Amino acid sequence: MGLVSANDDHQLLSKIATNDGHGENCAYFDGWKAYDNDPFHPIENRNGVIQMGLSENQLSFDLIEDWIRKNPNASICTTEGANAFKDIANFQDYHGLPEFRNAVAKFMGRVRGGRVSFDPNRIVMSGGATGANELLMFCLANPGDAFLIPTPYYPAYDRDLRWRTGVQLLPIICKSSNNFKITIEALEEAYNKAAEANIKVKGLIISNPSNPLGTILDMETLKSLVTFINKRNIHLVCNEIYSSTIFKPPSFISISEIIQHLECNSDLIHIVYSLSKDMGFPGFRVGIVYSYNDAVVNCGRKMSSFGLVSSQTQHLLALMLSDDDFVGRFLRESSKRIGNRHKHFTMGLEEVEIGCLPGNAGLFCWMDLRSLLKEPTFEDEMALWHVIIKEVKLNVSPGSSFHCVEPGWFRVCFANMDDATVEVALRRIQTFVTRTKKGEALLKYKPWQKKLQLSFSSQTYDDGLMSPHMLSPHSSIPHSPLL
Amino acid sequence: MGLVSANDDHQLLSKIATNDGHGENCAYFDGWKAYDNDPFHPIENRNGVIQMGLSENQLSFDLIEDWIRKNPNASICTTEGANAFKDIANFQDYHGLPEFRNAVAKFMGRVRGGRVSFDPNRIVMSGGATGANELLMFCLANPGDAFLIPTPYYPAYDRDLRWRTGVQLLPIICKSSNNFKITIEALEEAYNKAAEANIKVKGLIISNPSNPLGTILDMETLKSLVTFINKRNIHLVCNEIYSSTIFKPPSFISISEIIQHLECNSDLIHIVYSLSKDMGFPGFRVGIVYSYNDAVVNCGRKMSSFGLVSSQTQHLLALMLSDDDFVGRFLRESSKRIGNRHKHFTMGLEEVEIGCLPGNAGLFCWMDLRSLLKEPTFEDEMALWHVIIKEVKLNVSPGSSFHCVEPGWFRVCFANMDDATVEVALRRIQTFVTRTKKGEALLKYKPWQKKLQLSFSSQTYDDGLMSPHMLSPHSSIPHSPLL
Repeated sequence: MGLVSANDDHQLLSKIATNDGHGENCAYFDGWKAYDNDPFHPIENRNGVIQMGLSENQLSFDLIEDWIRKNPNASICTTEGANAFKDIANFQDYHGLPEFRNAVAKFMGRVRGGRVSFDPNRIVMSGGATGANELLMFCLANPGDAFLIPTPYYPAYDRDLRWRTGVQLLPIICKSSNNFKITIEALEEAYNKAAEANIKVKGLIISNPSNPLGTILDMETLKSLVTFINKRNIHLVCNEIYSSTIFKPPSFISISEIIQHLECNSDLIHIVYSLSKDMGFPGFRVGIVYSYNDAVVNCGRKMSSFGLVSSQTQHLLALMLSDDDFVGRFLRESSKRIGNRHKHFTMGLEEVEIGCLPGNAGLFCWMDLRSLLKEPTFEDEMALWHVIIKEVKLNVSPGSSFHCVEPGWFRVCFANMDDATVEVALRRIQTFVTRTKKGEALLKYKPWQKKLQLSFSSQTYDDGLMSPHMLSPHSSIPHSPLL
Repeated sequence: MGLVSANDDHQLLSKIATNDGHGENCAYFDGWKAYDNDPFHPIENRNGVIQMGLSENQLSFDLIEDWIRKNPNASICTTEGANAFKDIANFQDYHGLPEFRNAVAKFMGRVRGGRVSFDPNRIVMSGGATGANELLMFCLANPGDAFLIPTPYYPAYDRDLRWRTGVQLLPIICKSSNNFKITIEALEEAYNKAAEANIKVKGLIISNPSNPLGTILDMETLKSLVTFINKRNIHLVCNEIYSSTIFKPPSFISISEIIQHLECNSDLIHIVYSLSKDMGFPGFRVGIVYSYNDAVVNCGRKMSSFGLVSSQTQHLLALMLSDDDFVGRFLRESSKRIGNRHKHFTMGLEEVEIGCLPGNAGLFCWMDLRSLLKEPTFEDEMALWHVIIKEVKLNVSPGSSFHCVEPGWFRVCFANMDDATVEVALRRIQTFVTRTKKGEALLKYKPWQKKLQLSFSSQTYDDGLMSPHMLSPHSSIPHSPLL
């Protein structure tokens, strides 16, 4: 079994299977291995690596479990709900359960403060945001076509958007000098550069709120982006999977609100949504494409056959998300808890004069460690990252893996652990920073070491589905009570 | 919204979105509409259309519901199981829950009579067999490459295997003269024809048991196929999703048994499996790729990110499928019930001298209505089909939609309804056949009528995921007690 050599593989298998377009084979995963090999445990392994590379929302599960216990009828696996088992297990319509589509549409409106409503008939299911992203590319672009994307951006976009579709991603360069805001100048530059290279630009992809920045786009920027894509007749794909993680003003503005008030061809506008972040259900694989383009809805629905949501899960969520009282309570409380955690964590960093990009959303901070670099180079960023993983024992994600053009930024996730673990992580960072500034800490790990090599095109996949062992639900790590 | 013209679509959207590779836009769906517009109901609409185009296993749900009630710990939505909710909902590893992989591997061995065992580490998840089929094509072939496939074959293969991958399907012609068996001569002919046309053949796809034939492949045929692909160093993809629907001898022989005893490069062997037919859970979207090729397992696992099984569903099935007593009882009883239904249905057809291809598997018969055709043409097959849908009011599937090369064969599903409905369907067929043979029935519907046109390249999608309204679990059709 499996005795083929690499050469044989190239003949036997497809180009997709044998190229490295997926990006997982990069050295970055040595960082994950460091965590997998030595995971932190508050009692059994207090010196283990703490996972801060995982954008996961674990802060409000008590509310959900409470609802589950009070609503046995929502499940087809309870005495109260088992009568529905047959019909649900048999249900195989790619439109989805009507009550699921209705509930998701309603929830999406709720998350956007009720300022906009969504048509259940435009809700297209897919296998997580991963599947939703790919589905849209298959609908909108031919192999070789390009989408523009502001940097820094979610590393697994390289897999989701490019790997099997053959679509190119062209960066729009954003910089710290204006807090990484997208400027029309940078957008025009990227667009013109593509035109000069004879690359057909089919659209622009934005994440709002941004992963990894934790910021949201303001009204003015959103309007200028819509005007831009409308003028050039290219698509705008808006990833809004973090839309209910906003924890302080200003309010989130969805693209759906903008196009209510701005003249534009709504056939160009598409939203990617998911319940992985807002509800904390990445395992349930609920991805949504909401398109204002009828042809995309129709074609996307046919494509959704490749990644439908389990009818068991649709049934449960249909009831959960249409419980108005619960949804209201959950959204308020979840936002409050994320905000408290963010505040606590960033204040802890401030004690040692480490700043983060000001943000009001997401499950992470965009941490500024430029002051710890000897030189502002990616070599030094890697060297620092190796120390953080190997010595400080925190698995944070370096900016280069997000295609950031400035070295020294790191994404640090804070919502995938309990209070006690956050304290340990904070103490480790504080100690490390203090010692480094005193010149005590040694950057022992040289960049480009064979064993911990990281290429600039490497990708993290921390937001989903990659690590072989780290996320076992049978992990022995107990969780202390949450905020 | 959606105001683009077809021309605009072609500029704005991808070729995949604007070609008809998906195949749903064929006239065949008028047949589905006939059902949707006028569904049979035993009390409220006794003259409605009976759905016999849906290969669904509804015969043994009482056993499953009984197990569900007795095993509340298997669900994360019961008082007994809710403590696991957080860990399961958060679980996002594309390897799947270890206990899920173990249970599926064990179940696959059980279904094959314990004569072969499966390695849990080769179990790759995907979104149903639909996703599994596509995933394998993405791994094995480049756009333009071809797979050989015996006719008649599952209509939605055109979607699953070709649409987004660009892979071609080249038919191996099978005929009624030898009960549609695959001959090496036909296989060689298809292979050589491709070679002459300079098409690169990457493999052979077989369905065993066959959909739509309801037959299984014998040892000799399987060996000759393995020898063929091994000699040419091309892949063999075996769709075994009906492997536990065998209801009478001879026993099912899996490709996994063949390669235990036959010298071949197992890197070329890949199995597609699912729980949609064997367990009757199409809504749960459990697709499995089991490959003996390490590179395909590794690449396929990365691709599975686009169509993972909901962790909620994985958790439930892990416990259900690892319950040895239950699985044994279910497999025995399910097989018995399918066999009883098959016997009852085919004997009913025999009363009016309508035969079916002899078979011992599947949830359908391959019904021979050649004697009812005026001329052995596809025009007459269509004319007959229109009468069956419009006048007899049975939604059966014409052979041409399965790429059958001989007119007059129809696939008729019998396991997606209760006993009483089967009786109504049988009486309708009997009456129709008797009157037709007496010359009483009128073939009112002319072929190629605008409203009910069917092209020969049309596809049914009855085995999953297509019809907008037909499968609502809230359908008002009550089910009478099952066998």
